This record gives sequence, structure tokens and C-alpha cells, in this order.
Amino acid sequence: MFTPQAIGFVRSPYKDTAEVPKGLGAKHEADGVIEILPEFELGLTDIEGFSHLIVIWAFDRSQGFDLLSTPPSDNRPHGVFATRTPRRPNPIGLTIVKLLRREGKLLHVRGVDMLDGTPMLDIKPYLSSIPSETLRRGWLAEAEAQKG
Amino acid sequence: MFTPQAIGFVRSPYKDTAEVPKGLGAKHEADGVIEILPEFELGLTDIEGFSHLIVIWAFDRSQGFDLLSTPPSDNRPHGVFATRTPRRPNPIGLTIVKLLRREGKLLHVRGVDMLDGTPMLDIKPYLSSIPSETLRRGWLAEAEAQKG
Repeated sequence: MFTPQAIGFVRSPYKDTAEVPKGLGAKHEADGVIEILPEFELGLTDIEGFSHLIVIWAFDRSQGFDLLSTPPSDNRPHGVFATRTPRRPNPIGLTIVKLLRREGKLLHVRGVDMLDGTPMLDIKPYLSSIPSETLRRGWLAEAEAQKG
Repeated sequence: MFTPQAIGFVRSPYKDTAEVPKGLGAKHEADGVIEILPEFELGLTDIEGFSHLIVIWAFDRSQGFDLLSTPPSDNRPHGVFATRTPRRPNPIGLTIVKLLRREGKLLHVRGVDMLDGTPMLDIKPYLSSIPSETLRRGWLAEAEAQKG
């Protein structure tokens, strides 16, 4: 298996997990900056053409994992692979961000939900969406319906 | 930084990268099975409720990386972070699959594009889509337009 290395770090308004919007109806509209390390800047070539990016990063301030956990959006426990909890067997996070603009090795983005200083592992172009009307969202949809 | 560990492995019809559909208009409709290791099975609790899953995995047969590469869908090089090439600084792959059914620690899924035996790193529920009409897809849209 490979050894993860940071390709860059994010500048985010969130210094503590308590500040990150969570739970039902949480909006992720915070602006942030992904700063790519100089040795990887060439890898950003042509990224400006994409409106949205998939950012993969490490929950570097999370220790250990739980197979079951109760997310902020529900009062019942669910399997770790059916939630977005940070306490995962591999502490990998994923965020879809909107690319506002690129400035050299800086990507100005909207929609960050990571803590300030979080190490980035990968960036991929967002190419297509599953049509919303075909999505089923299990326990989350149930929790939303109960909340009314 | 964490040390990646396999949470399971995929059974896919593709034994070799040459067999995986690539390039413009490539369809990923192959069925496969993600087999989660017994020690992580409890983490699948309630996953049945989701129609689509985000699967994060390791390009375990890829060595090294290129900052620029020419993808099968174009004749010009682009930055690694603007493509889905396997030769990435962190060899992490991502696939959106449709969950057909769960059978204990087996997830029967549609849309696999990984090689048979690829180690899985994480599974997350697919919760929402960016509306297609708001997406810009840079060089890929240009290559599609040129192909006509």
C-alpha cells in the first residue's frame, strides 16, 4: 500500500470541529483557499476549466475509528460507511468544492468544510452528477422527514 | 499521516487496465462485488438505504506519477489534478457506484471501473449532486465538442 503525502494544505475559516456546520440542513458555503505545494503546481494545468472539484484529504486531527456512530443529523447509530463521520478505518475526507479562481498554486474555492491547515491528498475534476431524482438517501431522508 | 489499510477488495470483470472502458463516451456499467473484510462488516449497517455510494480505493498496480499526462479522451496533455489518470502523487481512485443489493459483507454494485482485486479504502454515502446545468467541464467538454 502507498504512503500518503500532502500535495498541499487548505486555508479555511474553521479552526475547530465545533465550528464546522453539521447536521440536517447544514450549508457548506464557506470560502477557502487550497494551496498546492510548489513541486505539484504543474499538476494544476488546465484545472481552471472546471467549475467543481472533488477534493480528497486527510482527517489529520481524528484518532481511531468506530464501526457504528450517531451522526449530528440523527439520533440513531449507523454504520461508519453509511455516514460521513471523521472516525473511519482510513481517515479520508471528501469535499466537492466550487472553483472560484486559480492564482498560480492557489485555488480559491467555495464549500470548504475542512479544518484550517488540513492536508490535501488529491484533487480530481468533477465530471458528472447522478440525477437527483434517482437518488435514495436512506436514514438521512428518514431523519429529514421526521424533522419535518 | 495515516497508514492506509484495505477495508475490503472488489471483484470486477476487468483483469487488466486495457479492458477498462476509457476515453470519450466510455460507459461504466459493469457489475461487480465489493467484499468488505469481516472485521469491518458492522460498518455497513444501514448502507442498504442508499442508492449510490462513493467508493475510494487504491491504484495498487500503478507506480509513480506524472504532473502532466495525455488522457485517452484527448490528444493534449493536462495537469494530473485535472484528469483521472492513475499515475497520481497519491494513487487514490474514486468511483460512484449504484448499490444493487447488500448480502452480508458483500455489496453488489453497478458501475465498477477498477481492476479485479483492487483494495478498497473507504465507502461513503452519495448524498447530493451538483446540478448538471451548473457544471463546466473544461478540456473534456472541448474534446467532446471537437469529436462532434
